[in-house]
Amino acid sequence: MALTWPEGVTSSGVAAGIKEAGARDLGILALEQPASWAGTFTRSGAAAAPVTWSRSLLGRPLRAIVVNSGNANACTGAAGAAAVAETARAAAVELGCSPDEVAIASTGPIGIRLPVDGLVRGLPRAVTELTGDVTPFADAILTTDTRRKASRSGGDGFEVVGVAKGAAMLAPNMATMLAFLATDVAVEGQTLQHVLGSAVRKTFDRISVDACQSTNDSVFLLASGTAGSADADALAKSVEAVCADLAEQMVRDAEGGSRLVRIRVAGAPDEDDAVALARGVADSALWRAAVHGGDPNWGRIVAALGAADPALDLADVAISIGAETVFNAGEPTGSIENAARAMAGGDVLVSCRVGDGPTEVELLTADLSPAYVELNAGGMS
Amino acid sequence: MALTWPEGVTSSGVAAGIKEAGARDLGILALEQPASWAGTFTRSGAAAAPVTWSRSLLGRPLRAIVVNSGNANACTGAAGAAAVAETARAAAVELGCSPDEVAIASTGPIGIRLPVDGLVRGLPRAVTELTGDVTPFADAILTTDTRRKASRSGGDGFEVVGVAKGAAMLAPNMATMLAFLATDVAVEGQTLQHVLGSAVRKTFDRISVDACQSTNDSVFLLASGTAGSADADALAKSVEAVCADLAEQMVRDAEGGSRLVRIRVAGAPDEDDAVALARGVADSALWRAAVHGGDPNWGRIVAALGAADPALDLADVAISIGAETVFNAGEPTGSIENAARAMAGGDVLVSCRVGDGPTEVELLTADLSPAYVELNAGGMS
Repeated sequence: MALTWPEGVTSSGVAAGIKEAGARDLGILALEQPASWAGTFTRSGAAAAPVTWSRSLLGRPLRAIVVNSGNANACTGAAGAAAVAETARAAAVELGCSPDEVAIASTGPIGIRLPVDGLVRGLPRAVTELTGDVTPFADAILTTDTRRKASRSGGDGFEVVGVAKGAAMLAPNMATMLAFLATDVAVEGQTLQHVLGSAVRKTFDRISVDACQSTNDSVFLLASGTAGSADADALAKSVEAVCADLAEQMVRDAEGGSRLVRIRVAGAPDEDDAVALARGVADSALWRAAVHGGDPNWGRIVAALGAADPALDLADVAISIGAETVFNAGEPTGSIENAARAMAGGDVLVSCRVGDGPTEVELLTADLSPAYVELNAGGMS
Repeated sequence: MALTWPEGVTSSGVAAGIKEAGARDLGILALEQPASWAGTFTRSGAAAAPVTWSRSLLGRPLRAIVVNSGNANACTGAAGAAAVAETARAAAVELGCSPDEVAIASTGPIGIRLPVDGLVRGLPRAVTELTGDVTPFADAILTTDTRRKASRSGGDGFEVVGVAKGAAMLAPNMATMLAFLATDVAVEGQTLQHVLGSAVRKTFDRISVDACQSTNDSVFLLASGTAGSADADALAKSVEAVCADLAEQMVRDAEGGSRLVRIRVAGAPDEDDAVALARGVADSALWRAAVHGGDPNWGRIVAALGAADPALDLADVAISIGAETVFNAGEPTGSIENAARAMAGGDVLVSCRVGDGPTEVELLTADLSPAYVELNAGGMS
């Protein structure tokens, strides 16, 4: 049962010789008519050339996004910027639009010159193959992902569909990831930007695999407008649902990861504090290694919370693994055997109460495995 | 050639049944007469009971420090605090001093009740065996360390000797580590605290193994005073030299690590910026995995710098691996093969120029190996 884009949106995915021969590595996501869109991008000071380009287009109508995998076109200097401009120009010719109506996204290794000639040669076929089916495009954006990632939500008379890639470098500020969402709602860009920014903050900004923020993170939301206007709250809800689903799919497919870890922090004074504490646990290599071994080493959770907040008062802290409370009001409690059983299955739930504040957040991460290290220990030279 | 403490300082190390039978796990470091001392401690909000106790003694003369390995006495609530008080009281009886002249330090797993009865039973023998030789004490404080860590420096008529432990949880704010330094200089506590704080900031605060700050980090500096007064700058220099040597020994013995990585950041506007950038690289799991594989994946260095500083200007950035400049003024350059050769041996040097600022710092880290994960994937249950 293939997922299809909302009306007015098409995509394609072809092989342009950037990855090993035969694999899809060039995708186009297109609107039938130039329309409003929103985008959120990495905050890295080493943002890649395609990010700089696409960010500069915000506020103007967009006709298409050209995406390649297999090369991040990051840290590639003037040649990298020229490759982006050339790609946009060539795509604009094929699509009959202006180059500044074409956004660009790239993902893959950093610091290697983008083989732009092959990419440009692949564009005519990519345009010819534009279709409502999300599949070829969703495949063309993958790198070390082991699975295609797509999701759909909808409300009264409209829908939101999205695809994503991302398996490592998943970290604060959106993770190394690309995500492409489209809706058929008619909505102007500024509202759309607000909707997307709010959704990203609660979803893609709350996953972490290795605490490494990427140079290429980009999330796009296109609005074809074919369904007319919709209730803004309903649209926001659907966009957040699709983002949340894609974010969870990413963590489930984390490099070397075998289990999803859900870290809940409750009782925090505000959202920033809650997220900082949850991120402290999510980013703890020691705790993530313990999860890999099914070891309920809750001391590493408390240590991570304490490192994240020097003013933490352990008398206010309670930690549960699954349903088993293992630490409460400064004291160990409960059964380590029960906690170990709660870690024996697939997903792991860690609940941290840190006080009497009103705020609760949830972050997702994965275990840290020897396979993650092996996957990332070679390849450039 | 055994290292000995400065005059007026003795130590011992015995087995008290906290670790597996037979291993030394209880140490005493003693001054012949109560004297001035300095201490720096973890900033964790989950600081262990011995940290809370020892920190409260700052400003008063100290007679001894009792140290156990094999149990951190952290997150152990009221029982943990009581165990610390009981240890200090029992040691004071043996040493003929007041309990508040006895500092305490612990290291090992978190959240397990300290077997204080065995520890107290071991104290008389530990006091009997006090000697100038650092060895039994240096052995008694080790946990997953594979080697004893000791260092000596000295100036005109005085010396500084130190021992340390620490192999993981080495992170900002002093790493999971214990270090014990002693000098024979006569110097009052406030000056000593300034000397130690300054040395720690430039040494133990500039190593990172897994970005996990511990609940038990403590560095002590005792001053027996037997050598009389000394030039304050000369003392500071010697203390920093011993701290730097011990810090490097820790990183060389990092859990699962096989190579030392020296990360230099130059051209930063100030020390905080320089350290934040260097720490970004040192804490990058992706870069550390690449080092393990001998892969000169410099894109991960730039990505880590960019993630650490959203305002980074790549036009000002140059990266070298060993002597090979691989990235300069926004462009890849140099030879990946040469860079790979520079990573083929033991230590790896990464030099990052980030602008025209006056500040240069160096951080030490180790590679991230599958062995690190395996070491940390089990043990609690």
